[in-house]
Parts: sequence; structure tokens; C-alpha cells
Amino acid sequence: MTENDRDYIQSIERGFAVLLAFDANQPNPTLAELATATDLSRPAVRRILLTLQKLGYVSGHDGRWSLTPRVLSIGQHYSASNALIDAALPRLVEISEATHESASLGVLDGTDVVYAARVPVRRIMSINVSVGTRIPAYATSMGRALLAWAPAATVDWVIENSSFERLTAGTVTTERGLRACLEAVRREGFALTAEELEQGLISLAAPVRDATGEVVGVAACSTSAGRSTPERFRTDVAPLLVEKANALSADLGFRP
Amino acid sequence: MTENDRDYIQSIERGFAVLLAFDANQPNPTLAELATATDLSRPAVRRILLTLQKLGYVSGHDGRWSLTPRVLSIGQHYSASNALIDAALPRLVEISEATHESASLGVLDGTDVVYAARVPVRRIMSINVSVGTRIPAYATSMGRALLAWAPAATVDWVIENSSFERLTAGTVTTERGLRACLEAVRREGFALTAEELEQGLISLAAPVRDATGEVVGVAACSTSAGRSTPERFRTDVAPLLVEKANALSADLGFRP
Repeated sequence: MTENDRDYIQSIERGFAVLLAFDANQPNPTLAELATATDLSRPAVRRILLTLQKLGYVSGHDGRWSLTPRVLSIGQHYSASNALIDAALPRLVEISEATHESASLGVLDGTDVVYAARVPVRRIMSINVSVGTRIPAYATSMGRALLAWAPAATVDWVIENSSFERLTAGTVTTERGLRACLEAVRREGFALTAEELEQGLISLAAPVRDATGEVVGVAACSTSAGRSTPERFRTDVAPLLVEKANALSADLGFRP
Repeated sequence: MTENDRDYIQSIERGFAVLLAFDANQPNPTLAELATATDLSRPAVRRILLTLQKLGYVSGHDGRWSLTPRVLSIGQHYSASNALIDAALPRLVEISEATHESASLGVLDGTDVVYAARVPVRRIMSINVSVGTRIPAYATSMGRALLAWAPAATVDWVIENSSFERLTAGTVTTERGLRACLEAVRREGFALTAEELEQGLISLAAPVRDATGEVVGVAACSTSAGRSTPERFRTDVAPLLVEKANALSADLGFRP
């Protein structure tokens, strides 16, 4: 047993495992369903649910459990302690208003990009993500714009740990291919991907820098193949997106 | 010791206490600062931090700790399991675009209203709340629109447990006063508050019903005394807000 193992509190891990087992497919699970989803025993899940209920994070009715809005306060503390999100929201609104598309702020977390803020637009066929949604960095414009200016060690680590799964016919699935993409992103100043993560999805992302010049996030904007083409999206939207990402960098104190 | 006490897992409570101790005032606390904020011993906080770090929720550098974007995934599971938020976002965008003010979705949690979704607008003097922010129901238009059609037992409980603190000169601070406000809200179909929660803040809220007719949330819109007056905000914005809240109720399957 290493020192780290001794210091590890398993019941905290299990508490989060139960909380995360509530999702869109299973918004109101039973105790038995949660036990299956988390691979924990029913008595263990029961004790965790009673604890989470007492803390106000879940509520139970007629044998079914659901999350309460109190769980939002956990993520909110990330937002509250994160000046980047505060600064980004108004710029995302500008992007969304100018493009009539949803606009997002993405940050790197491991091999994934996490949506840290988002301004949606109303549409029948909209892109169904929300704050906290995770997408793989290797296959997305947000990931590439984050990696293009990241330290070499970060890029190496992400490449080593990414699945490079072929998500569509167009997904770049090799280290060499991804490194060539990052080179192109550095040259152009933004990342464009078309139908690599999902059929029909076209995305643009531009880097956001803090006062030290480090790329701390990306501003991004997506559309669907039915509404635009990669060429048109590049011509019409990329200059605006880069301008707004630069304005956000300036808000954060970056002076080029 | 009751059965509930035996089933209670204290380390889960402590894990959340440490996570919630990160906030806008203390985004990068030291171990000692977290121990003070949570009233836990330093060795206890240390074990919790190492656990949360291993789970990817916090990271430590140079003796200071910060939340990672992974904490957003906890709140995201509430959003993902919550059809109300998905349905509300496009309507909030419509409200925001028509009014040039931020628009929010609020839900009741205990004696508080929680911002469950929000579409912000860019402004020098903007209203600084984010998803997960909590405000007291008794002193806010959102709280009153949520309570006006709530079951009597819920209203009684909120009244019994609210502080009725005088937050501004205009705050309604008595049960009788609040019950009269709820009566007016039912009559008008929406709630308007002016400078009760905060000097200069004017807010409107309208109820959102699900397919069963229950009020499950409120759509809300705020402005500042410098940009409008309560009378003008009522005339110009309330009809639109009620219309959009009704459209959202219809989206959720409500048929009046």
C-alpha cells in the first residue's frame, strides 16, 4: 500500500459514482438500477443515497431517485472561481448574435475538451451539448485549437492517451495526422473540423490567451452541413470568431 | 443513534464541504485555508484533497489548490436529466433577444430559488449570477412566481424557514406581506419585484407548467433602475415574458 492509497477515501469516490450514474438515459433510477450502473452492492448504494438525500443532492419518491438543483452549486463554484467564464459569456453572446449559431467556451481536461460555457440558439436541429459535456480533443476543432499552442509535454500526453477512434469516415486517427492538423491550426490561427466527430457537424475554434500569453481556452462555433459548408463557414465565420477570441484575450489582459 | 444516522457516510459530506469551500473569494486556497473554511483538521482536508485530486476534481500547484472543469460534469448530469432546462434554453434566448436583457430559468430548492439556466447579455453593469446561484425565494420575483401556485404545505414550509431579512428598504419582511404578494401574483399571472433583493434591481418572473399543470419553474428577466422603471418594465416586458413562459409550458405538454 502506497501513501496515496492509504490517503484515499473510497466512500467519496463511491458518492460521486452514484451522483454521476444519473444521466439523460436514466434520470430517475431505482436503487437497483443505480447498483447495476455503479457496480456497487444495493446496501452500499442505499447508504450513499440516504447520505446524498440528507445533504440535499438527491430526492426519492416512490422508489425512484432524482438529482436536485443543489448539484448545480458544485459546478457553480468552478464558474464562480473562474474569471475566464465570466469574461467569455458576453463575447459568446456576440458570436451567437452575429452568426445565429450557438457559441461555446472550451477548456482542456485530460484528453477531453469540456464545455465550460455556452450560449445556445433555438433550432429544430440544434447541437445537443451543455456546460460540462466532454468531447475528445483529437477529433474536434476545440481540442486542436487548445493543443496547437499547448506545451509539447501536454500534446505528447494527449496523443499517448487518446483513443484515436474512427468516429466518422473523416476522423483523423493517427498521431501524424493530428500533428499535421495542429501545424495547420498554428498557421491559420484557428481550427476547422468538418464531420470528424459526427456526421454533418462543422466546427470552428479560436484560441483565447490569458495575460501571460498561455492559451487557457477556446471560443467555438458550430453549424450543420445542411446550413453551411466548411468553405463557407471558414470564410463567413472564422474572421469574426478570431476577432472575438482576441477581444476576449484582451479582456483577460493579453497584449500581443 | 437512529437508523438514518447509522446510514450516514460522513466522509461524503466532508468531501462536498471541501469542494464547496472553493469560491469566487477563495478560488485557489491553501490546505490551511480550506481547513479553516470547512472547520476540518488539516490531515482530514489533506486526505480529502488527495482523493479529489485522484478523482480529477481538484488540482494542486505550489501549495495552492483549484477546481478542475471536471466538477462541471456533476451539475451537467442534472441538466442532462432535466428536460425542463433543454426546453427552456431556446425560449430564454428569445426573451433575451427581444428584451436585450439577461433571461433565466429558476427552480425552487428549499427556501431558495436556484438559477437552473441562464442566457446572459453583455453590459458594463450586468447582473452577476450564474447557473447554480441561489437567491432567497421570499424577496424575489422568481420565488414569488414559484410559490404563488405551489401547494399550501410548500408555501407554509418556505415561510416558516425563511429569514425574512430586510435586504433593502423595500424588502417585504412579514408572512402577511408575502402572502399578499402571492395573491397579487396569482391575479396578475406574473411577479414583479423592484429593489427588494438589491438596490436598483427590477425583476419579472412568470410560471412554467409541465404536462400535469404543476408549476415546475419560472422564466425571469431583470433590468436595473438606471435602464427602466418598474412601471415601464411591467408594460414593456411582462406580456412578452408571460407569452414565452406559456410557450415553454406548451413545449412541456401543458394544455390550459
